[in-house]
This record gives sequence, structure tokens and C-alpha cells, in this order.
Amino acid sequence: MSTPAENQRKSIDTINALVPEKVEQALGILDEVGVDMWITFADKKGPGQGDPIHEIIFGERDLGGGILILTRRGERIALVSGLDVAIPPMTGVWDQVVACHRDERQKLVETIERLKPQTIALNYSTRFPKADGLSHGKYLWLAETLQGTPYAGRLCSAEDIIVRLRGRKSPGEVAGIKAAIARTDEIFQAVRPYVRAGRTGRELYNFMLAEVDRQGLATSWSRDYCPIVTVGPVAPIGHTPPNDAALQPGWTLQIDFGVQYMGFCGDFQRMWYLLEDGETAPPVDVQHLFETVRRGVDAIIETLGPGVPTWKPAEAALEVLTGAGYPPFQYGVGHALGRSVHDGTPGLGRRQPDSPEWLMEPGNVFTAEGLETLVEGRGWVSLEDDVLITDSDRVVLTPQQREFWLVS
Amino acid sequence: MSTPAENQRKSIDTINALVPEKVEQALGILDEVGVDMWITFADKKGPGQGDPIHEIIFGERDLGGGILILTRRGERIALVSGLDVAIPPMTGVWDQVVACHRDERQKLVETIERLKPQTIALNYSTRFPKADGLSHGKYLWLAETLQGTPYAGRLCSAEDIIVRLRGRKSPGEVAGIKAAIARTDEIFQAVRPYVRAGRTGRELYNFMLAEVDRQGLATSWSRDYCPIVTVGPVAPIGHTPPNDAALQPGWTLQIDFGVQYMGFCGDFQRMWYLLEDGETAPPVDVQHLFETVRRGVDAIIETLGPGVPTWKPAEAALEVLTGAGYPPFQYGVGHALGRSVHDGTPGLGRRQPDSPEWLMEPGNVFTAEGLETLVEGRGWVSLEDDVLITDSDRVVLTPQQREFWLVS
Repeated sequence: MSTPAENQRKSIDTINALVPEKVEQALGILDEVGVDMWITFADKKGPGQGDPIHEIIFGERDLGGGILILTRRGERIALVSGLDVAIPPMTGVWDQVVACHRDERQKLVETIERLKPQTIALNYSTRFPKADGLSHGKYLWLAETLQGTPYAGRLCSAEDIIVRLRGRKSPGEVAGIKAAIARTDEIFQAVRPYVRAGRTGRELYNFMLAEVDRQGLATSWSRDYCPIVTVGPVAPIGHTPPNDAALQPGWTLQIDFGVQYMGFCGDFQRMWYLLEDGETAPPVDVQHLFETVRRGVDAIIETLGPGVPTWKPAEAALEVLTGAGYPPFQYGVGHALGRSVHDGTPGLGRRQPDSPEWLMEPGNVFTAEGLETLVEGRGWVSLEDDVLITDSDRVVLTPQQREFWLVS
Repeated sequence: MSTPAENQRKSIDTINALVPEKVEQALGILDEVGVDMWITFADKKGPGQGDPIHEIIFGERDLGGGILILTRRGERIALVSGLDVAIPPMTGVWDQVVACHRDERQKLVETIERLKPQTIALNYSTRFPKADGLSHGKYLWLAETLQGTPYAGRLCSAEDIIVRLRGRKSPGEVAGIKAAIARTDEIFQAVRPYVRAGRTGRELYNFMLAEVDRQGLATSWSRDYCPIVTVGPVAPIGHTPPNDAALQPGWTLQIDFGVQYMGFCGDFQRMWYLLEDGETAPPVDVQHLFETVRRGVDAIIETLGPGVPTWKPAEAALEVLTGAGYPPFQYGVGHALGRSVHDGTPGLGRRQPDSPEWLMEPGNVFTAEGLETLVEGRGWVSLEDDVLITDSDRVVLTPQQREFWLVS
């Protein structure tokens, strides 16, 4: 059992250890997209703060300020305050350190003039918050600094670089996600003996959160509604805090949950059915819906693979659900998963006439989920798995639930 | 004794309870600076993330996204996703809720057209990171949204609003800072019996951090170097992690430390002297330096008051130090303190020929500190207090150290 402080330390160590493999990837991506220079401002003041890309390319290491430059030719340059010159080399990859003493503007211009980039990518995006880590004030500072040089007109968005770099999980990142899934599964197993008729949504929520705290973990999303506990037909489905409805025989129970461990998130769902007196299996309509949702999630998973447009899985799932006579679902059927539970790269949404087409890439990790459907008087049914895209197809990372967990 | 989870909860509750008094202040400031409308994007995804002003005007409440608008006429308008309409009223002040369903652009333009502002302030700043919470992508989105309307040309920086609002601590904020100072003092008292010859910097650091963890608190700055433990003449002064130098009789020990409690930070320093065999007091030169630094910090404090330029205290301190025959110091003599340890508003720096003049305001809280000076072979001496500016002068919030803590 770890304390929160130990887990925080381990998470920082893990994230820091991943920096070399992610910077390596980033350099490859610069070449792939044809960008000469990528600039990130390192104004991070603690875990979770500052530009979201900072932890990926530099780790959980605070700088008083600074500018991180990667180039297509493979250079890794950190402009930092004189007090911080020892920090970049600690990463093992940022080996060119330029010490600044209130002369960041001049040092930056000198560096850019030496490298003569045709394109300079910056972290802004109107679509992906995780690719939009540059503040407007910093942008103005940079534009002012480059004014009068040919480089002022060579700025572009790094959105495409960040979507690829964040989306393509490196081996170490995949290991992190697997570890978080394993810890999530342990807590799902821990709550099983506690589920019985009469338990309220709030009791189940409290039990699981206490387990999260006891193990020194964090929840994958806001602890206000993680786990999401959907009790029978009376609880609303969605991002809602727990309520005091008590479980009854003849009802379903759905729990959507995930923990953050070593810097990565798990996120999947489990379904229970509470047998009524004399029942040995769920009623036919409940069982039929479960099997349909299972087939729907399997159809999502089977659609996943490199080069596949991200809207494809929703079509496959919709076909299964409506083909079995259920109404269509409203939402997407998955999202990118990684350091964040919604990892900021394109998700598995429905096809939109005006949205750009994103193709899946090896290393992407998606949830495959949803198809939430209600059986009147019984409750909601939905399922969720986490899936890694491989070079050829895909591999499911979660233990898949193929039958209700029955409670008598 | 609280668990980290309980303290996190209490901190969130405190921050949320302060929203009404801070929004009230903000409305007054809009009138004062003559800005008709102030827009904040609410793309917060958890504590410490997103625009730093979000927690001050809306609390630690996550929205899936949204736009917060305050007007000079006193309106408090939240444009949020349809799923989040219940959240703004929970603040007790954001009473106009506009529900958006993928039509944020249209709803925003309608709202602005109804209010007809002459000026619209946005959260960007090239000088203060805490006033620079708007991402460049969000800025571009807004500029695009307002294109073709008269409002596109009415955008300005909210820097001045944020510096005033963050800087002028409300009564509840002052209470929070006092509570954090009290908890910091407790840990300073706890480490006193542990200090003796032979202890290393790392042991003292570990002892204090263990106490922080046991009490379920957080450190005011990165736990990698909080506390900063400066052992005798061998440890470098500054933002450095602990090392293995062992305390010796005849040496000073300086510890700079603070804890975060209920959302606010403490930050002050304590000085020890380790008596040599037969000594009953520090040597004359060490004692003289301590008294000079004490007089220097007192001179800083006596200079603080409403309407005083922020460079004044450094001049006063410099006069004391150099007047007593010591070399001048390099750094500033204080910084704003509050929700963050460096609270992002102007600090007590040295006078710069080209920097704007900031005048202190009632409600500002500053550290008064520094004058770090070395006695060769003995160690460093410096002191630090936390001070609140009042309507007429100032009040010291920390228990002031007037003598060395002696260890025999």
C-alpha cells in the first residue's frame, strides 16, 4: 500500500522516465509533418499546470520559466534562467542549454537566427485544448520579439504535431495505461462483495472512493462523480454525483470508474443485475439488451485499426443497436485515453458533415463504450473497454465483461 | 488531524465560499478602471488547471467548458453547456445562465449585442502569468466569432483588473492566509527539538515534509525544495533541494518554509545558531548580522503602506544593510502572497529605470524578506515575515523572530 506522497513521487518518476522516448517520437513527427522548429514555453508551476505538452517533452520538472525548442534536425535546446541550468540535462535529452539573464528575447532571436527555420510551430489550437497550451500573452511576447525578422511570418500551429505525439502512445505509456487499468480492476473486484439490495448509490460511491484513498490513488476524473454509480431506472445516466436511491431486486447497476496511477488513467464500466426472489438469471429483455450492448461494443472494437476514420466505430455500433430494435444513441462511442481520461486527441464521434477526417494510428488508445439504453423499470445497460491500436489491428487492454455480475 | 482528501475538500469549500466577496470586488474594479465587460473562458479541468482567475471568480467548480461574463452594470452571466446549467447558480452569484448546445458562438454574440460594451477585457498579459490565463487558441476563436461586429475592435487586456482583484485580499482571503501561517508555524515549532549538531539538511527536510504529510497538508511551493534548508556556510542559498551537509557547532541554520492550507499559502523563515562548547550566545559578528537583518526586514515592513511605490522597501532595506557595512543584496525584498506563494501581482523589487510604478493597495499581502548575507565560516543569515497592507498602514501576520533560536 502506498501513501499519496509516495504515489505522487512514483508518478513523477514515471513521467520523467518517459521523456526520452517521447522526445524521440516528437523529432520523428517534426520530420513527418515538415516543420523545422517547435517552440514550447516552459512556464509550468507544478503538476497539472502550464502547457499540457510540457510534462510529455520535459517531464514534471519545474523551471522558473524558459523556452524549449525542438528542431527537425534533432536539436533539443532549452533557454532557461541562469538559476535553472542544471535542470534540462537531468532529462537525459535536453542537452543544449542556453542560460538567460533577463535577456530571453535576445537569446531566442540569436538561437532562431542560427537555425534559420522555414516554419516555427507554436502550441495553439481552436479545437483541441490539450494542443492549446500557449497563452495569448506569451504569443504577443513572441510576436513582438520576432518583429522585424523574417521569422515573424513563419509561425504556425503545432496542433498536428501534438495530436500525433499525444495520440501515439509509446511503449512506456502503454505500460502506464495497463497499470492504471489493473488498479481500477482491483477496486471493481473489491466492491463486488459489497453490492446488495438496499445499498444506495452514495454508499457504493463512498466505498470505492475510500478504497481509492486507502491505496493512495487518484480518480481518473473529478472525484465529485468518479465512480459514476447508476442505480436501476431511477438514477440519471451521465456525469452526475451519487444519490440516495437504494438498489432493488430486479434492477441493474452500472458503474463507470477509473483510477489514475503512475501518471496514467484507466476508464471502464461494469454491470450488475440484482436477482429477484426465485430468479437465477436476468429477465429476457434485460439479458437481450446486455447481449446487444456487448455485441455493439465488440463491433466498435472490431472496427478499430490503423488508417480507419474515427467516425467508423459509431456507425458499426449504431447498426448493431438499431438492428436489434433499440433506439439510436446520442453520444460518441469512445475517446482517447492516456495521461488524461479525455486525452485531448480526436475521439470516436459520430460522423459530422463539416468536421475533418481523422485516421487512427498505431499507438492510439481509445475507450470503446456507450450505447446506454434503458429497460423501463429495470435500469440502464452500457459497457466500456479500453483498446490499443497496433500496427495491424488492435488489442483490448481491459478484462472484458461478457456476463452480468449477478447478485442474489 | 485531517487526511489529504479531507483537506482537499475543505480547501475547495473555502475557495468556493469566497466567490461572492471576490465577484463583488471585481464588479467594483470594473467600474474603477472603466471597463464595461470582462470575459473569462471556463475551460478548467481540475484544481490548479485552466485560467488562474477561474477559482477566484467561480470557485473550484469544473465546467465542461463555458464563458463567464461580468459587466460594469453588475451582471454575472455564465454561458455553459446544457449539461452544466445547474452549476453557476451553486456559486450564489452567477445568476444569469445561458445554456449552449453547440451554439456558443451565436449565444456569445447575442449576449454581447444585448449589452453593447464599449470595452471588453480579456485575460492576457505579457508581464503577469497569473493574468495571462487566456490561451491563444481561445483568443483566435473569440476574434473569429466577433469578426464583422463592432466588438472585434473593442478587446483589451484585463491585466489591470486581475492585478487589483488578486492583489486586494478580501477578509476571507486574509483569514485563509492567517490559517496557513499558523499551520506553518506549528511545523516550525515541531522541528525545533529535532535540530542539533550532526543533523543533515536532508534529515531536517525529511522531518518537516513527513509532518506536512502527517497533517495532510501541501507545501507552499514544489516539495522538491520546500522547506529550503540552508546548513551553515556550506549549503548554497536559494531554491535548492536539501543536501547531506551535517550541522556543526558554530554554524547558523536557516529554514525557509510554508504550507498550503485551505487554499492559501504561508511563507516565512526561521534562524538557528548552534552554540559551541562554552558559548552562551552567538559570536559578536553573527549576532551583529542577525540584528542588522532584523532591522532591515523591519525597515521593509515600516515602509509598507497604501499608496507607497513597490520599489520603496528595497531602498530602505539596502540603506540598513550597507549602512551597517555589509555588501548590497541582489534580489527583491518581497513578493505578493495568497492562493499562490508567488501570487502573480507586483512584488517588492528593486527600482528599475524602465518598469512601471505600482502603488501598494489596502488588502495587499507581501512577504518582507531577504538580505541574505554570509558570515564566512558560520553560515547565512536572513529573515522573512508576511505583512498585510491596511487602509492606514500595515499589520504583520507572522510571529516575528527577534532572536536566534539557540541550540546547545
